[in-house]
Amino acid sequence: MGKQQVLLDKIAQTLHIRNKLVRQGLAECLGTLILVMFGCGAVAQVKLSEGSHGMFLTVNLAFGFAATLGVLVCGQVSGGHLNPAVTFALCILGRSKWRKFPVYFLSQTIGAFFGAGIIFGMYYDALQKYHAKTGTLPYGIFATYPGDHITTANGFFDQFIGTAALIVCILAIVDPYNNPIPQGLEAFTVGFTILVIGLSMGFNTGYAVNPARDLGPRIFTSMAGWGSSVFTQGNYWFLVPIFAPFLGTVIGVIMYQLMVGWHTEVEAKSKKMEAEGMNVKLNDIDSSVP
Amino acid sequence: MGKQQVLLDKIAQTLHIRNKLVRQGLAECLGTLILVMFGCGAVAQVKLSEGSHGMFLTVNLAFGFAATLGVLVCGQVSGGHLNPAVTFALCILGRSKWRKFPVYFLSQTIGAFFGAGIIFGMYYDALQKYHAKTGTLPYGIFATYPGDHITTANGFFDQFIGTAALIVCILAIVDPYNNPIPQGLEAFTVGFTILVIGLSMGFNTGYAVNPARDLGPRIFTSMAGWGSSVFTQGNYWFLVPIFAPFLGTVIGVIMYQLMVGWHTEVEAKSKKMEAEGMNVKLNDIDSSVP
Amino acid sequence: MGKQQVLLDKIAQTLHIRNKLVRQGLAECLGTLILVMFGCGAVAQVKLSEGSHGMFLTVNLAFGFAATLGVLVCGQVSGGHLNPAVTFALCILGRSKWRKFPVYFLSQTIGAFFGAGIIFGMYYDALQKYHAKTGTLPYGIFATYPGDHITTANGFFDQFIGTAALIVCILAIVDPYNNPIPQGLEAFTVGFTILVIGLSMGFNTGYAVNPARDLGPRIFTSMAGWGSSVFTQGNYWFLVPIFAPFLGTVIGVIMYQLMVGWHTEVEAKSKKMEAEGMNVKLNDIDSSVP
Amino acid sequence: MGKQQVLLDKIAQTLHIRNKLVRQGLAECLGTLILVMFGCGAVAQVKLSEGSHGMFLTVNLAFGFAATLGVLVCGQVSGGHLNPAVTFALCILGRSKWRKFPVYFLSQTIGAFFGAGIIFGMYYDALQKYHAKTGTLPYGIFATYPGDHITTANGFFDQFIGTAALIVCILAIVDPYNNPIPQGLEAFTVGFTILVIGLSMGFNTGYAVNPARDLGPRIFTSMAGWGSSVFTQGNYWFLVPIFAPFLGTVIGVIMYQLMVGWHTEVEAKSKKMEAEGMNVKLNDIDSSVP
Repeated sequence: MGKQQVLLDKIAQTLHIRNKLVRQGLAECLGTLILVMFGCGAVAQVKLSEGSHGMFLTVNLAFGFAATLGVLVCGQVSGGHLNPAVTFALCILGRSKWRKFPVYFLSQTIGAFFGAGIIFGMYYDALQKYHAKTGTLPYGIFATYPGDHITTANGFFDQFIGTAALIVCILAIVDPYNNPIPQGLEAFTVGFTILVIGLSMGFNTGYAVNPARDLGPRIFTSMAGWGSSVFTQGNYWFLVPIFAPFLGTVIGVIMYQLMVGWHTEVEAKSKKMEAEGMNVKLNDIDSSVP
Repeated sequence: MGKQQVLLDKIAQTLHIRNKLVRQGLAECLGTLILVMFGCGAVAQVKLSEGSHGMFLTVNLAFGFAATLGVLVCGQVSGGHLNPAVTFALCILGRSKWRKFPVYFLSQTIGAFFGAGIIFGMYYDALQKYHAKTGTLPYGIFATYPGDHITTANGFFDQFIGTAALIVCILAIVDPYNNPIPQGLEAFTVGFTILVIGLSMGFNTGYAVNPARDLGPRIFTSMAGWGSSVFTQGNYWFLVPIFAPFLGTVIGVIMYQLMVGWHTEVEAKSKKMEAEGMNVKLNDIDSSVP
Repeated sequence: MGKQQVLLDKIAQTLHIRNKLVRQGLAECLGTLILVMFGCGAVAQVKLSEGSHGMFLTVNLAFGFAATLGVLVCGQVSGGHLNPAVTFALCILGRSKWRKFPVYFLSQTIGAFFGAGIIFGMYYDALQKYHAKTGTLPYGIFATYPGDHITTANGFFDQFIGTAALIVCILAIVDPYNNPIPQGLEAFTVGFTILVIGLSMGFNTGYAVNPARDLGPRIFTSMAGWGSSVFTQGNYWFLVPIFAPFLGTVIGVIMYQLMVGWHTEVEAKSKKMEAEGMNVKLNDIDSSVP
Repeated sequence: MGKQQVLLDKIAQTLHIRNKLVRQGLAECLGTLILVMFGCGAVAQVKLSEGSHGMFLTVNLAFGFAATLGVLVCGQVSGGHLNPAVTFALCILGRSKWRKFPVYFLSQTIGAFFGAGIIFGMYYDALQKYHAKTGTLPYGIFATYPGDHITTANGFFDQFIGTAALIVCILAIVDPYNNPIPQGLEAFTVGFTILVIGLSMGFNTGYAVNPARDLGPRIFTSMAGWGSSVFTQGNYWFLVPIFAPFLGTVIGVIMYQLMVGWHTEVEAKSKKMEAEGMNVKLNDIDSSVP
């Protein structure tokens, strides 16, 4: 095994990337790929099996636990955002640098693009059969589209509220001054959050609540034969899951900070300052000792 | 980022509320809002999609994990009761001050009111379509109503037992002398408790087992067009989910304390006293050393 | 709150039971009550709602997480067996005293009896309506009965294998020499074990795999109007869920110990002895220093 | 209890196996037996009950949590691979010795064989009734077969991608330089991974993604009356779940290492070397002190 180890070390040294932001981008890309591959895979399984191999609940479970797995794969390297709205929220609060935002957004969208591509390949035969049988393309497997019952205004509100709810929960999970979860369980809690959003806010428009998760697969389907219709459908619906989530993020950040975050933060900081103040005094005493 | 940090600190300082009880009320309000928003959202999704986007199990899962998320959001600040019955139980046992009770009850009811309001807005189009199609208002999405098969007496017993079972489990989870759960997993265990109650005690009356979760949304629906019928329906049923849970709380507290709680408490205290007694003796010996 | 605390302390002192075995029996009784109340409640909900409020999966989930909650409530006091087969397995391996066995068996059966009673009361109206509508009593809600497709021999094998599988998993969870689970997560793992057994071994006879869980509710139904038929049905089927589990326990213990348990145990002990041996030598050296 | 303990110790000493690899093989055998027993049991329950006692989701849940239980039972002894593809991945990365590979593969296949056998015995009556009623043998309960809609090429890609996805997640869970999960929760995370793969990649060919899990039960069914048809069906499909997973493993290892693994590894090692370098310098300074 000696030789194998030497070879592996050499490969690792050769392929190692020094730039931290590039490494983080790669990790976000893989994490989002996993999220979209499993999530859209579950939608494909339900749609193409005509319900024999799943239902809406299995889609909810898959998106939830796929988020958990995606966060686990890349969390240590990049923080495991998987969602530009999450990156945006952390930038607003100064916990992430603004220059990360475009890199993460791009990486997440590319990861989502390839995640959709893998599912397209995996279910290629079933997609062909579906097309041959129904004469339509299975819209809704990859990107999201609004239900028939909903206006664009209500759809916008849906995405807006869904993302605000997501951000409130995510902030509670990662708040450094209000951290209620044992180290290492954040990924599971994120998964439960996505699961619950799907269970209660999935009927209107398919709960994208994530610009990258929606845009990447949409671009893929556009290239894979669906054409420009994926952008024009539903009165250019594709713009809503890109812009509404960022607005929802702002409200989510304000809501959480106003009702919980700022209070715990100021408390924690004032306690810390008191403690330091006491140290200063103690040091004064110490240094006054001859 | 320096300027951003300064600005954020200034905002935090300005909006910081000094009164602890007010902060706890705000946190309970947000936590209960999350519980009701996700829980009632799941009911709305099942009802308005006519079963295509969920079933009774998804409602159970949503209420359970919504409770988990609600507790996580506010638990560090307010304890994460989300339910006046839980506050009541802790007051009875002297673990919470009685003056917290009215503040928490009010905050929880307000949170539940707004949680219902958000779901009303989110599913506005779908609610309109449902109304246009069936000519009826979708009772049961927001507040709970008894099933056709049940008398008020049996419904009262249902709420009474459901809350007693909830309180027994909650007390086991938070008992300081019998704490079996790793720090930080309480919220998940609370979620599983709510899930199990829904799976086994949900058929009769919709398992409110929480005065605030039921009253807040009921007031909202009354104001949103349902009118006074939400109070008069089912022989003034609305009184049952307000009063039966408190009676159930008393029985739950007695049951748990009688069969487990008081024994572990007395054991733990007598052990502690013995240990202190030995310390006293040791100190005596130490101090007797010249 | 001072007076309240004094009163509570006085009550605790008065009601405190000194005998440890009685306290453990009480705890097992409450734990098994919770298991059966939630588990049989889920069966009742599915059966009486005619599938609108659940399905076989919800019964599996309820029994699984009810076991988790039952273990959490009583685990610190009594170990949280909830099942005479588990007590039997621990007695065989010398980890529990044999005199505990009859006390636990009795307590668990009494707890199961009252758990069934609570569900009977809770669903009283629904049971009456079911009886009026179908003319039959809803067999299968409380105790278990074999399916139409199965002979008694196969049913015996079913209970035998189900309990052996349960015991292998339980032993892995509680093995002191092979403890893979963080302190405090045993209850959740037990819950997942019961869930999986229900998902894969529930079709034949309803997966009692627990003499107390089956016998207690059966006695209750016999007294509540079902009469002696609960014992005679299925060629005196009631004897199988009492005796087959104990035989399965023996095989489960042997299987686990043969393939994993004894090897890790001997390893751990020989390591400990080596370490102690080295200490002895070191002490010899130390003490030989003048 | 003294005598019982002496007897147990004697048995343990007598049956203790000194060879570590044999012990690991036994443990893998038991773990894979548990995986296949519960997993295939859930398929049997769904198929033989004609959907009254489960659905595709319950199969996914059973395989997922069965993997959790299998890992828990044998993880401390053998690492809990339960899958030759996992053993292969760890050998490629030099974390497991190559000579373990054939032993583990064989043990896992034998365990899967017996797991299938237990389920065959448990559902013997139901299988007979199914055969008598439909005139066909219930293919698909034990080994996997491709769906009607899929070509062998797509089926190969399905198994290839499924295993690659599994390996990426498993590597993230066990990566010593990127370990995000609290000690002892690996088994649960593995379970969620298998669950998600089943929810999103189960429609095409039944997501074996494990040569042993598929080959063992296939050999059993061949011997139990199905004959050689289990090998010839679907253009000798049985070869695909044996070879595609290993190819998928290679790609999964490369993907994970390229995008996350090697970067964290080189970082961690260079930090460690720096720290050691500083120690060396400090030691130099220390030793230069007269």
